[in-house]
Amino acid sequence: MNPFQQAREAAAAARARYRDGLVSPTAGHAPGLTQCNMICLPRDWAYDFLLFAQRNPQACPVLDVTEPGEFSTFLAADADLRTDLPLYRVWRDGELAAEVSDVRELWAEHDDLVTFLIGCSFTFENDLLEAGIDVRHISEGCNVPMYRSNRACRPAGRLQGNMVVSMRPVPAERVADAARITARYPGVHGAPVHVGEPALLGIADIAQPDFGDAVSIKPGEIPVFWACGVTPQSVVMASKVPFAISHAPGHMFITDVPDSQYHV
Amino acid sequence: MNPFQQAREAAAAARARYRDGLVSPTAGHAPGLTQCNMICLPRDWAYDFLLFAQRNPQACPVLDVTEPGEFSTFLAADADLRTDLPLYRVWRDGELAAEVSDVRELWAEHDDLVTFLIGCSFTFENDLLEAGIDVRHISEGCNVPMYRSNRACRPAGRLQGNMVVSMRPVPAERVADAARITARYPGVHGAPVHVGEPALLGIADIAQPDFGDAVSIKPGEIPVFWACGVTPQSVVMASKVPFAISHAPGHMFITDVPDSQYHV
Repeated sequence: MNPFQQAREAAAAARARYRDGLVSPTAGHAPGLTQCNMICLPRDWAYDFLLFAQRNPQACPVLDVTEPGEFSTFLAADADLRTDLPLYRVWRDGELAAEVSDVRELWAEHDDLVTFLIGCSFTFENDLLEAGIDVRHISEGCNVPMYRSNRACRPAGRLQGNMVVSMRPVPAERVADAARITARYPGVHGAPVHVGEPALLGIADIAQPDFGDAVSIKPGEIPVFWACGVTPQSVVMASKVPFAISHAPGHMFITDVPDSQYHV
Repeated sequence: MNPFQQAREAAAAARARYRDGLVSPTAGHAPGLTQCNMICLPRDWAYDFLLFAQRNPQACPVLDVTEPGEFSTFLAADADLRTDLPLYRVWRDGELAAEVSDVRELWAEHDDLVTFLIGCSFTFENDLLEAGIDVRHISEGCNVPMYRSNRACRPAGRLQGNMVVSMRPVPAERVADAARITARYPGVHGAPVHVGEPALLGIADIAQPDFGDAVSIKPGEIPVFWACGVTPQSVVMASKVPFAISHAPGHMFITDVPDSQYHV
């Protein structure tokens, strides 16, 4: 079995564990295979969202869109999008209504859901690790810290809201390397949107992320911020979308697509 | 005046000449500024097209989408999309109905047109020239040769059709350079989709392009093919879309955005 086949088996095994009920952040799992953010909206909202994504490609790089009511994707042929993520969030009128590990019943109630699978910055973390740049939430075994920023996205139709960002601390002398490496993954958020000075992004306390877990920032490290695929959840809240299902932050959909697919 | 300001003045001057009636291919004009393909469709077709573009990003990299009925774009704040391209094509029921240099009257008849501006491979030609790779249609002063390929796009809704490709002859020892250089422009078609052997793409005679002009291929040169933003016109034909307006192949919309914006 070659390494790619091994990775695909690891991905299928991870999806099977989540299908069976395991709840766990996915960073570092099935390394080498792309992970996705997910947002499902009624068909009536699909154009607004696809346009929003086009207008905000750093935050919302779309990797696949399903037909209304479908729950399969060409990103992983045997996967079921209703069960194969470790944790989902259900949104009603822009408010978090529930966190559940299976959304088959909800899908049955809303038969025209369109699912958008959106690139995730986990995709380039393997390259950072290989370049000798520590990825703190992996080495500390927790979820990546994410923050609501003060940066407004370009609105589209009924959708508007601010960008959510993920943060990784990087030694000052490696910031340029981190920017260079991640820039070549434009399909999975690409280059950082901000380096240093959290206050300029409207982040009052870097130790209090809005999503995920805080990580330690060591002396000589600079907080580096990337656009984050949790942005659609922030937009669902800000725009009071009547119904949506998303992944829970950090609990991604693991695909069968190698990270290298998104490397330019 | 710095070089960027000079380029912007050249772009504005070119748009003004087209607005005044000049009809001419745009390759090589306002160098350094991005040129776009254009397709305008009734609002009812906008979701299908945006989804088609998402599913076929090499052929249809979307750089901007207007609101229904609007004819301005943030890609060039002072431009009027109804007059500022040198030549337009009007499509009715999937057939070419007219070529005109001004579409203001048609826009008035169809008040909910959504305009998609799509990246163009002219964007990376400056980089090819700077690397010492001749761009034949520029050096021969004609339009780029384009061909309907046998490669089916991923369909979306009512839209389906084959990819159109542009061709540039490249010396065999520079093909890798051409691939490397253009790969870093994923927003404007990116890397070649095919190198050599036109017959494998379904092209019977390289000297008979379906759009644009034939160019000479010198001994030792390989035909290299890139996905082309004329693909939407091929899709309009194949899908028998009731009404559409497009640019005429090679007669692009010149923006105020520097090519470097799309360099990864």
